[in-house]
Amino acid sequence: MKKDQRPSYDHVPMVVIKRLPKYYRYLGELVEKKLERISSQKLAQMMDISASQLRQDLNHFGEFGQQGYGYRVEDLYQEIGKIIGLEYQYNMVIVGAGNLGRALANYSNFCLRGFCLWALFDIDPELVGLNVNGIGIKDISELHDFVADNNISIGIITVPKEAAQGVADRLVAAGVKGIWNFAPVDIKVPDSIILENEHLADSLMVLSFRLRGKMG
Amino acid sequence: MKKDQRPSYDHVPMVVIKRLPKYYRYLGELVEKKLERISSQKLAQMMDISASQLRQDLNHFGEFGQQGYGYRVEDLYQEIGKIIGLEYQYNMVIVGAGNLGRALANYSNFCLRGFCLWALFDIDPELVGLNVNGIGIKDISELHDFVADNNISIGIITVPKEAAQGVADRLVAAGVKGIWNFAPVDIKVPDSIILENEHLADSLMVLSFRLRGKMG
Repeated sequence: MKKDQRPSYDHVPMVVIKRLPKYYRYLGELVEKKLERISSQKLAQMMDISASQLRQDLNHFGEFGQQGYGYRVEDLYQEIGKIIGLEYQYNMVIVGAGNLGRALANYSNFCLRGFCLWALFDIDPELVGLNVNGIGIKDISELHDFVADNNISIGIITVPKEAAQGVADRLVAAGVKGIWNFAPVDIKVPDSIILENEHLADSLMVLSFRLRGKMG
Repeated sequence: MKKDQRPSYDHVPMVVIKRLPKYYRYLGELVEKKLERISSQKLAQMMDISASQLRQDLNHFGEFGQQGYGYRVEDLYQEIGKIIGLEYQYNMVIVGAGNLGRALANYSNFCLRGFCLWALFDIDPELVGLNVNGIGIKDISELHDFVADNNISIGIITVPKEAAQGVADRLVAAGVKGIWNFAPVDIKVPDSIILENEHLADSLMVLSFRLRGKMG
């Protein structure tokens, strides 16, 4: 699909968008099991949602499946991948080569899906020059040129909280289009930059809220 | 607040619950800056939400703030902490002492908030006996007794996808009340167990979806 033919999904609520990766993940497992088709009831049941929610969610993006036949698993998997934007290659760098940065660098299956990691950056001279999962750790001073020269579209921030805004500013100045921030702080970026925050402590607090009725 | 006086928040939508950690985080920063009071407008503006959303969210939990005065920062911070359940101590173990498990073990400020990590577990004999941030890595065979003997309420899963369900089953059998799962697979647990999944690849896909209009 060329860019100019690409449908706009501006009307689709973010809660629906956030369920797409789960649909994609479940369908991927069914593709691996070589299942050819599945009913909306069965797919919904696997995912612990209602069949009507599944159908409503998919209706935002077009017509999938046929009454009485269900969905062709492989087709729906491919379509959802396209909706998510997985036909593009996203070139990425990680800034911060501590345990979290290295954990993400080891998540090698990211690249299979088109998210390719090309370098890690750090300020620690003891880390610079090492490599993780075959990917080199470079000095932070090389960040700007590397991002600009290698068509890097996503910067991943895994530095301490205090350093995060400075790193975000450098990534933006160097030309990334999106930032995935793991530092436990809300960084500010220009409106043109897509920002996803991953506040791990927030999830732990949601777990706490849900657990507190069970604590003695 | 004793357990039997604890209000029920069963009616509060999960989207509201998920915003509580963000309120708590911002208020914590204001407490550090020794700010005494803040208007709902100003707090909402800092957080990029509307003042009416802020007031509506807080109304689910009681009456906070005063017309014309705003909120007492420290009081609201403490109240939200209580609502989240942060007056309890949650004892935790991590299963999987790879980079991600070690990254989480290094997140030392978790314990300040009452989430205390007591051990990591792994099957790799080369890792067993080492320690991370002062916390020992134990053999997985010790998991059951350790969880049962140390009042462990939360198990964190950072093992590969294939091993995740088995680890979840062992944690449940040993008596944890909640599971925080980082393995990229949807594990099944009994209804009585609180499960939070942290699917990192899902966030990357949401980033992809939001970026795709900007890709050439």
